[in-house]
Amino acid sequence: MMIVVMKKTATVKETAGVIRHIEELGLKPHISQGDEKTVIGAIGDERSIDKERLLGLEGVEAVIPILKPYKLASREFKPDATVVSLNGTKIGANTVTVMAGPCAVESYEQVREAAIAAKAAGARILRGGAFKPRTSPYAFQGLGRKGLEILARVRDEVGIPIVTECLSQDDVELVSDYADIIQIGARNMQNFSMLEKIGRQSRPVLLKRGLMSTIEELLMSAEYLLANGNYNVILCERGIRTFEKLTRNTADIAAIPALKTLTHLPVILDPSHATGERHLIPPVSLAGIAAGADGLIVEIHPYPDKALCDGYQSLTLEQFDAMMKQVKNISAAVGKTV
Amino acid sequence: MMIVVMKKTATVKETAGVIRHIEELGLKPHISQGDEKTVIGAIGDERSIDKERLLGLEGVEAVIPILKPYKLASREFKPDATVVSLNGTKIGANTVTVMAGPCAVESYEQVREAAIAAKAAGARILRGGAFKPRTSPYAFQGLGRKGLEILARVRDEVGIPIVTECLSQDDVELVSDYADIIQIGARNMQNFSMLEKIGRQSRPVLLKRGLMSTIEELLMSAEYLLANGNYNVILCERGIRTFEKLTRNTADIAAIPALKTLTHLPVILDPSHATGERHLIPPVSLAGIAAGADGLIVEIHPYPDKALCDGYQSLTLEQFDAMMKQVKNISAAVGKTV
Amino acid sequence: MMIVVMKKTATVKETAGVIRHIEELGLKPHISQGDEKTVIGAIGDERSIDKERLLGLEGVEAVIPILKPYKLASREFKPDATVVSLNGTKIGANTVTVMAGPCAVESYEQVREAAIAAKAAGARILRGGAFKPRTSPYAFQGLGRKGLEILARVRDEVGIPIVTECLSQDDVELVSDYADIIQIGARNMQNFSMLEKIGRQSRPVLLKRGLMSTIEELLMSAEYLLANGNYNVILCERGIRTFEKLTRNTADIAAIPALKTLTHLPVILDPSHATGERHLIPPVSLAGIAAGADGLIVEIHPYPDKALCDGYQSLTLEQFDAMMKQVKNISAAVGKTV
Amino acid sequence: MMIVVMKKTATVKETAGVIRHIEELGLKPHISQGDEKTVIGAIGDERSIDKERLLGLEGVEAVIPILKPYKLASREFKPDATVVSLNGTKIGANTVTVMAGPCAVESYEQVREAAIAAKAAGARILRGGAFKPRTSPYAFQGLGRKGLEILARVRDEVGIPIVTECLSQDDVELVSDYADIIQIGARNMQNFSMLEKIGRQSRPVLLKRGLMSTIEELLMSAEYLLANGNYNVILCERGIRTFEKLTRNTADIAAIPALKTLTHLPVILDPSHATGERHLIPPVSLAGIAAGADGLIVEIHPYPDKALCDGYQSLTLEQFDAMMKQVKNISAAVGKTV
Repeated sequence: MMIVVMKKTATVKETAGVIRHIEELGLKPHISQGDEKTVIGAIGDERSIDKERLLGLEGVEAVIPILKPYKLASREFKPDATVVSLNGTKIGANTVTVMAGPCAVESYEQVREAAIAAKAAGARILRGGAFKPRTSPYAFQGLGRKGLEILARVRDEVGIPIVTECLSQDDVELVSDYADIIQIGARNMQNFSMLEKIGRQSRPVLLKRGLMSTIEELLMSAEYLLANGNYNVILCERGIRTFEKLTRNTADIAAIPALKTLTHLPVILDPSHATGERHLIPPVSLAGIAAGADGLIVEIHPYPDKALCDGYQSLTLEQFDAMMKQVKNISAAVGKTV
Repeated sequence: MMIVVMKKTATVKETAGVIRHIEELGLKPHISQGDEKTVIGAIGDERSIDKERLLGLEGVEAVIPILKPYKLASREFKPDATVVSLNGTKIGANTVTVMAGPCAVESYEQVREAAIAAKAAGARILRGGAFKPRTSPYAFQGLGRKGLEILARVRDEVGIPIVTECLSQDDVELVSDYADIIQIGARNMQNFSMLEKIGRQSRPVLLKRGLMSTIEELLMSAEYLLANGNYNVILCERGIRTFEKLTRNTADIAAIPALKTLTHLPVILDPSHATGERHLIPPVSLAGIAAGADGLIVEIHPYPDKALCDGYQSLTLEQFDAMMKQVKNISAAVGKTV
Repeated sequence: MMIVVMKKTATVKETAGVIRHIEELGLKPHISQGDEKTVIGAIGDERSIDKERLLGLEGVEAVIPILKPYKLASREFKPDATVVSLNGTKIGANTVTVMAGPCAVESYEQVREAAIAAKAAGARILRGGAFKPRTSPYAFQGLGRKGLEILARVRDEVGIPIVTECLSQDDVELVSDYADIIQIGARNMQNFSMLEKIGRQSRPVLLKRGLMSTIEELLMSAEYLLANGNYNVILCERGIRTFEKLTRNTADIAAIPALKTLTHLPVILDPSHATGERHLIPPVSLAGIAAGADGLIVEIHPYPDKALCDGYQSLTLEQFDAMMKQVKNISAAVGKTV
Repeated sequence: MMIVVMKKTATVKETAGVIRHIEELGLKPHISQGDEKTVIGAIGDERSIDKERLLGLEGVEAVIPILKPYKLASREFKPDATVVSLNGTKIGANTVTVMAGPCAVESYEQVREAAIAAKAAGARILRGGAFKPRTSPYAFQGLGRKGLEILARVRDEVGIPIVTECLSQDDVELVSDYADIIQIGARNMQNFSMLEKIGRQSRPVLLKRGLMSTIEELLMSAEYLLANGNYNVILCERGIRTFEKLTRNTADIAAIPALKTLTHLPVILDPSHATGERHLIPPVSLAGIAAGADGLIVEIHPYPDKALCDGYQSLTLEQFDAMMKQVKNISAAVGKTV
């Protein structure tokens, strides 16, 4: 990919001219409107690009190749941080945005109780699984469409947007009909055909890092979404697999600042799956914020002991409320608001 | 799951009676016809089973719960090894079945040349990717349907069945129209909705272990296929991710005998992805056979230096031919034929 | 091991009586003087203990077995946090104690410059390697005794205690002659004979987690030190080996609160080795403190580009000073002082 | 390091002249006498070498730098395979040399029974631990000197050389007084000061790969032994740590052919620690030989259920005898004798 940096003084007409030229070469233009300058990415076979010719076009300041394997996701293409907006909520705008809710949607009452408590404690987004990825075909697979309906009802009643996972290409439209943010789970991070399909719809996406995936692979999967037209992508570190078995996974805390350097996309932390241990969730959440995360996604449950899944790693509503007080303290210490 | 072991002397009518009883309880019966005895698995909510009642039915010898999380895939359910038959070729029948071919289908000529050489050297099945899972959205994604057509044409001309990967739920029918064996790649091992869909069609399946999936998770993914009705499943060890970077992955050689103990399904080894280094493929292939593998799947290419993908880990046709001589020696030493 | 909990009202004489009884059984007594109660551990063959007899002794409140494999290191044996005192500096006393200095001692001038800057920025302890563990026998192995002399001279001139690594059993006495804290490096975490020897001397010990070691194994190695009589042990998380290669190691941030739960010993973080990337050290340091670490050990160098080892992961003195301002902010947010 | 390749026709006097020249430069010469040519390595600061001057010396054919970080251990330095000779037994000479015996020396009777059975089944070397590395300070640490005496007595009576581990620098002389081969365990692979001391004595050394050490690090540790003058080094793959928990470790089978390519030193496999499961030891042993291993080191015990350590991964004497029949078959299939 080549990126064309337009002059600060470039007119809309000049920018349009560059876009047209790129399209005529059979390449796909991607536009990034920065605070000061507009940058146009040209994706496709670079050999069709005559760099001198491009430099000669009106309003063009520079033509630069992006050498990293991820292009649209890179800071080189877009130096300014991406902010994902969701009605009033902004993710990535010097805030710590907390998403909370039950692992699985079990009932209207359960979700409603969790949503009210989450919002009261300071969470901005409600999480909840309607479709659950389960290792066993015999385990509870989620309520499906009925779960989505519960989430949507609670959203409307409580006034909190929802994030929920899409598990199957066949459900992309269904999930995007209900969700405010579509989640792609760790096991599907490299389900490329689902990535393409979700990239072509317009809901913001929460992309979780695979248990076995490198930081670069996470960015490459984000690139699938961006290259298909969806620029509202939130990345999520959720722990990787290692030899250590005291915790369910190992939270790769350095991945947060590493990602923030490499990409303009917001990065959040899932302390629940990263640790798998209730008492470790608050300290690891604070660590994530201190390391620069733009938010958290936390499992909470009104009655964890009765949860249909992941109860042992769900905070009670009281524990979540207590944790949020610390979250606010740490956020303030790094100059962010919750 | 409970399994009902029928007496050696049980009649077809008695067996049918047990099946009917299981269905009436709202459970799903799965039948395993062993050399000596028939075993019927009852999958569903075990609480609906009255064990004493079942034991009282005609022809029933024993009623046993399966405690392992995988049921139909376990040796407890089916002590005899599963043999996957494909016209003349049998996988799992005390043979070493070698699958070979290029990483990606590039052209009719390339596939044909590889197929003729593979067959001449002793391979029984032709591999080749029409749909390629690629980390980058900008990398060569395979020829798609055209690639399937090339594979099918070569199959008919050369007389060798084909195995090829399905990358998307949307392509399950398309791939099963052309392939003799449908491959599920490492990145899709836990793409549960695709597993369910492939489980409902009738082609044999080659299920590859994920890069960071445990042996038990591989068996659970196989269980998704079996529980949906497809019993012709071949498992494939293809290396796992570790800290060691001299090789592309780390071949988990002990997974082969471990799997052979835990499951009745055939197990093969992919030495190409497991090592990622051409010169390590022959010794690791021999190791796989010595460890009890039922076969190999190997990347070969007429001109590896010109390959569109994985050239560095593809054997030349001459190297493959030389390796197959050693494969035959080792196979004979463990009492198997190639 | 059994632990004998003495009553709050137990007299010195009663405690001495219990100790004598334990010794008469051929067991080794370990005494932990808590804020409220005294606890005596009896290590050795438990079968020689008559629990009823012990309970009958004057001043004994309870006799409890410790089931965890680590005994003296466990919170069960000693619920109060251990505070390691070093002249005025206290490690583990609701403070964040920062240790900083060069990877290797190169010259008096280099160490002095680093020490002055470290102290000015708020570091309490000077680190520096006189003996360097090197993968290659041909790499710079450190200045040895001369390095120790430089460290000691700078300590006296600048007024800051020193921590330095012991690499060989033969050097335990030499290092303890110069160091205020003896460091045991990751590669020697399971060098049990060196652990025993260091356990028998009286300097406080900084025990680093091995690259390949579980949290439990770290505690077991600490147990070697404690069982040999040295209770002043500081544990250090320094990153573990995983498949991720963007960072040198993966900082196991959850290990910090996990350790704080399991043991009474202070726990610090080495962000330099954990990340191996200069720009990741500040955010990971802050994360460590937010997660509950009692301190940090950081590599700094007056001129990192000229460093004989680890220059790429050493902060400049200015970078360290800037980081310490953030460290103070985060420490305050978790209620600690630096 | 530079290596000086002597002409085939070079005289002893010419070779001596080159050695003298290297010493005069302040470098350390290492001589490798190949089948056809003599090669002299010059280790030290390469800047002191005047390559033209060296090339001008009588009998010198070529002067070549070795770029790999390991020098004396590399195939570049010594293309011919190293054969470690031990009375009649040769390790590395196109043979499969099997070492077998109990994990820990428990009694004269136990060792003697194991030794007789091992020898009868075809093992050439007796293994047995007198000093045991134990995670817990409270676990059985081995019989120490008494264990060495038992091993030596059995060696003399049964007529089989012994390999046993040295755990402490302080014991190097003691162990070398008794052992025919000194073993360095996985936990001490990077105990550099012990490596140096063992490198300076003359017994052959069995160097085990660390649980989380790379192949290159294993070679670097071997280099410590060679650089200190001990060229009789046998490398041992014994499994590495991964996320897979069904087996104790993951046997890195590809490490065997990878090592055989990179180094001239013999390479053996420890299937007992690599798998930790009795029933997996025979198939993984066969895999190791098929992959090119020069031998095996296997834990056996007359009564595994009563073993003081590692009983669950020890073969009975009958199982070992049965396995050795298969070992002979596979060895023959790869053109080797047992």
